[in-house]
Formats: sequence, C-alpha cells, structure tokens
Amino acid sequence: MANVVLTDHPWPDVDIERGILAAAGYETIAGPIETSDAAYVESLVATHDPVAIMTCWARVSAAAIARPTALKIVTRMGVGLDNIDVAAATARGAWVTNVPDYCVEEVSDHAITLMLAFWRGVHALDRDVKAGSWNPASARLKRVSKQVIGIVGYGNIGRATAHKLSRGFGCKVLVNSRSLLKQHANSHQLEHQVFVADIATMQREADAIVLHAPLTEQTRHFAGAEFFAGLERKPLLINVSRGGLVDNDALVSALGSGQLSGAGLDVVEGEPAPPRAITQRSDIIVTPHVAFSSDAALAELRQRSAEDVVRVLQGNAPRHPCNAPVMG
Amino acid sequence: MANVVLTDHPWPDVDIERGILAAAGYETIAGPIETSDAAYVESLVATHDPVAIMTCWARVSAAAIARPTALKIVTRMGVGLDNIDVAAATARGAWVTNVPDYCVEEVSDHAITLMLAFWRGVHALDRDVKAGSWNPASARLKRVSKQVIGIVGYGNIGRATAHKLSRGFGCKVLVNSRSLLKQHANSHQLEHQVFVADIATMQREADAIVLHAPLTEQTRHFAGAEFFAGLERKPLLINVSRGGLVDNDALVSALGSGQLSGAGLDVVEGEPAPPRAITQRSDIIVTPHVAFSSDAALAELRQRSAEDVVRVLQGNAPRHPCNAPVMG
Repeated sequence: MANVVLTDHPWPDVDIERGILAAAGYETIAGPIETSDAAYVESLVATHDPVAIMTCWARVSAAAIARPTALKIVTRMGVGLDNIDVAAATARGAWVTNVPDYCVEEVSDHAITLMLAFWRGVHALDRDVKAGSWNPASARLKRVSKQVIGIVGYGNIGRATAHKLSRGFGCKVLVNSRSLLKQHANSHQLEHQVFVADIATMQREADAIVLHAPLTEQTRHFAGAEFFAGLERKPLLINVSRGGLVDNDALVSALGSGQLSGAGLDVVEGEPAPPRAITQRSDIIVTPHVAFSSDAALAELRQRSAEDVVRVLQGNAPRHPCNAPVMG
Repeated sequence: MANVVLTDHPWPDVDIERGILAAAGYETIAGPIETSDAAYVESLVATHDPVAIMTCWARVSAAAIARPTALKIVTRMGVGLDNIDVAAATARGAWVTNVPDYCVEEVSDHAITLMLAFWRGVHALDRDVKAGSWNPASARLKRVSKQVIGIVGYGNIGRATAHKLSRGFGCKVLVNSRSLLKQHANSHQLEHQVFVADIATMQREADAIVLHAPLTEQTRHFAGAEFFAGLERKPLLINVSRGGLVDNDALVSALGSGQLSGAGLDVVEGEPAPPRAITQRSDIIVTPHVAFSSDAALAELRQRSAEDVVRVLQGNAPRHPCNAPVMG
C-alpha cells in the first residue's frame, strides 16, 4: 500500500484525511500536530517514501521533494504556498495544489472581530472587571459605522470583509490592490460605500488598516516605518494574512509613538515563537494563526485536500493546481 | 442663577452640559463620576435646590423629587427609566425625559462584538498567547454565517442587530417580542434571513441569544433556570440591556452544566459590584455597562439631554417626554 505523508496538522486527529485516503487504497503517515521543521519532514519522507505529501505549515523543501521515488503531488492544506518549494515540485513532475477558498468567511470574520474588539474595548474592559474594577468612565469606545476601514488586498477575502463592513455596519471602506489601481482611478466607487484608494489616501483617512494580501517579495514588510509614519488618524492595524507583511520592530515603534492605536494580529513574523515584545503588549491582541479556522472550514479543508490527492493519485488532474508540472 | 444638579456622569468632565446650561443662564452642580446612591442625590438636591435634575445611573427617589421648591424636569441621560421615580415627578408636575435613540448603533455593535469574540476565540487565545503558548490546534472556532441568532426584544436596537447579522454576515436571525407575536405567526419572515420566532423556537435553534429587551416586572429574570433548561444548541447568552433580565445563579448553573457555552454581559445584576461568581469565569466576558458608549454617542447624549432641560426651563415642551406631568 502506497504512503501519503501528512507533515503536520493543527487539529487534534487525522480521521477525515485517513478515511478518504484509505477508501482509495492509501496509507496515511501523520506527523505531529505541531509544525515540524524542514529536516523533520525530510526524514519522514526518507522513511516512508510517499507518493503524496500533504502539509499545513511545515516546510516542504527541495530535498524533501527530491527524495521520494514516485512523488505525484504536494498539497498545501491551506492557501499560501510560501512553505513549499514549488519550483522543485514542478521540475520533478509533481503537482502542487492548495485549497484556495475554504476559509474566506473565517478570515474575514476574524479580521472584523479583532477590529470590533478594540473599538468596543471588550478585551481591556473584561480584564479590568476581572481585576475588580467597574469603571464605565474609563471607556473610550467607537461607533462602528463612523469608522473608515482600509483593506490592502482585494481578493475573495478582502471583498468579504468590505461587504460585511459596508452592508452590515454602514462603514466607508477603502480598498487597494495593484490590479484595482490599474483598472480604476483613486476614489472610484466600486459599490455602495466601497471605494478604490491608493495607499496615501488610506494612510490619511483610515481608522483601521486590514492586511488581506499575500506575502511576496514586493509585500514583505509592507507595514514598516515608512508606512506607519504616513498614518494620520492613529488607526488600528489588523494582520490576518502573513506575519512577514509587518515589520515587528517598526510596529512596536509605531505603537509607542502613537502612530497606531493598536494592532490585532493573527500572524506574527517569528511564529510559532513570536517575539515577546509583540505578544506581551496590552495594545496588541494576538491569536495563534487561527483566522482560517472554524469547524466548518476545517472539515472542508481536510476533505477537499485529501480528495485532490486521491484525484491525482488516480491519474486525474487536480481541482486546484498551482503549477504545471514537467511531465517525464 | 438657578441650579441644575447632575447626579453622576460616567465620563471625565461635564463641559458639554455646563456649556449648554450656562448659555441659557443656569449653573451646573455636578456630582461624582461614579454612580452615587439615593441618599447622596437627596442631600445634593437639598443643598442646591435645583430646577432640574439630570441623572445617568444614580437613583432619583421620590424624596429627591419632592424636596426642591421649583423642580421642572428630571432627565435620564440614557434610555431606561428604572432609576427615576417617574410617578413622583408626574404628581408634582415635573417632566421626566430621556434620550431614546442616541446609542442604538453602539449597543448593537457591542452585542455583535461580544458574540464574535467568543466565536472567533479572541479572548481565550490572546490570553494563551500572552501566557507563552502558540497552539492553533486548541482553537474551536465558528463560521459566523452558519450561526443562528435569537434576538429577544425588537425595538430600534434589536432591528439594528438583526440587520447587521443578516445583511452583513448572512446569518439567520430569529426575532421575538410580544407585539411581533401578536401581529405575526411563528416563523413569519420579516425580511431576508429575519424570522419571527417564539421563545421555544429560539431555544431549539439559536446559537446565540441576545437580550435587547427592557427590564419590567414581566421580563425580570427572563433568562432563568427554566429558560436555560430548554436550550438545545448550547448557545451563547448576550445581555446588553439590564442585569435584572438574567438570574445570576441560574446562569452560573447553566454554564456549569453545559446548557450554555458562554455569556457576554455588559450588565450584571448587582453592578457596580457584580458577584465574583460571574465576573471571574473565563467563559463569561464582562464589560462594565458601556454598550451605550462611544465618542459619538456620548457627545449626542450629553448635548441632547442638556438641550431638553433648557427647552423645559424656558417654558417649552421637551423633545422626549416620558410622562404627562400634573400641571398645578
């Protein structure tokens, strides 16, 4: 029976994956719940010679991809591909796949939750009440409909966040992406309360800036000293995409100097051991890279990625290809 | 110069009120930021013989209302009138007024924030991260659009919450009020995704129950042992109305037995010194009666209540009368 290696799984068991793979005649070799390092993945692959590698956060290196005798597919159980050496897979004729849209609602829900938590003060106030205080006069809260939200990155997730804030709460939303600015002039109205905006406009007008952009060489440290220096309304920064979009040192400085009023981070450069200078601040709310997660999303993710593995192993094209492998 | 007594003000200064009253020729006598007791209000009134009493949370008793020589108006700086002896004011010919709609958006925003905080796990996860853990596998999160929300009380605030959840997040919303159920059959659709529901339907179907109802003899301890016993989906309870709607002991039992999964409370019976059995639980998020509050709402509230005082003192009818005073 051929093996499928599942490098890591930030959920308690692998029953869904194992069930789908076993029904198709494949054995599941599961790594730990925790994200393992590239060397661990390489040794797991060396031991089990898989025909497929499924990974959540663990790094799948060129070495791990080169080793198996008959590797057909590397599946990202998620969206971003930054932990997979896609070129190495392409070169050896293996598919790389992902599950592009399973968590659109969740990431967008999470971004909005982090914003609201600050604007309605629920973290700080609950902490105060639990410490024995009952001081309504200490609250400095916001009416959500009066806030202007800037969204950097306008794919499916950015659109979902814009929709919820504009239709649900009546907020003005400024959206930015390179392709939007190629198509439309600054301040072009896309729909009711949603406007295309360049970064300078966002820096001037936004009460919160939400990062819904992929991590690339162009976007790395997008939120850095220069960006923070241009902010005018002391906004919140919300990052639910990749830690590398934010320069941690610049973030700490921007909070210290009052350029930002707070940050909600589901991702932090340095995770899974993010710097304490970030996590210990009371003006930063941190969640441990879970914005993608819900009972509904995880079930979809696990099922759909295992199904794409089976599809490829049975000789069909995957539903969500991310490369065009060189076939031998 | 005639005096206006402001019994308490859960905001840092009384500049807005003093400005409006001084312009009309009245002196403002401000009590403390903290809610004072009925005896303190009575002594403040005895000392300053006001023509108007403005109160936020402090109790304005029949004795306080009887004492002044020429009292024209008692203004609630808020919505509910449960801290004012309205009958005593009516009998002596003084208006009672409130500001009925200044915080509709805020209370609704606050209720939704408390719900989302649980469903996206931000409180517990931020606490874990700050304690040094980074464990995404521990998260048990929800996709908001899949949740069914029951709203008890369908005035302006209930409607705002229903709108945000249905239009913004795509949730199914069940709404209940006595007048709705007189007009419509159970499960009647009011608008897209919003349905009239009796309490039994809500108990069966809701993933969160939000209290947006006034406190009356009929609604006191509405959320008690009997109500909790009928819940089927282990919902959240969100109370942003009045503490007395919830039976604290029954709430603690319902959380302990798993009838409820959590509670978000902006109001607690016993405030401003709510029982530690409530505030210390990690499955209860408590904020100190601030759901009404925002920079925008407070400015509106303070301005509009001072303006209604001036209107009455200048011999006109108030904009928001809550009684029909017996004129001498």
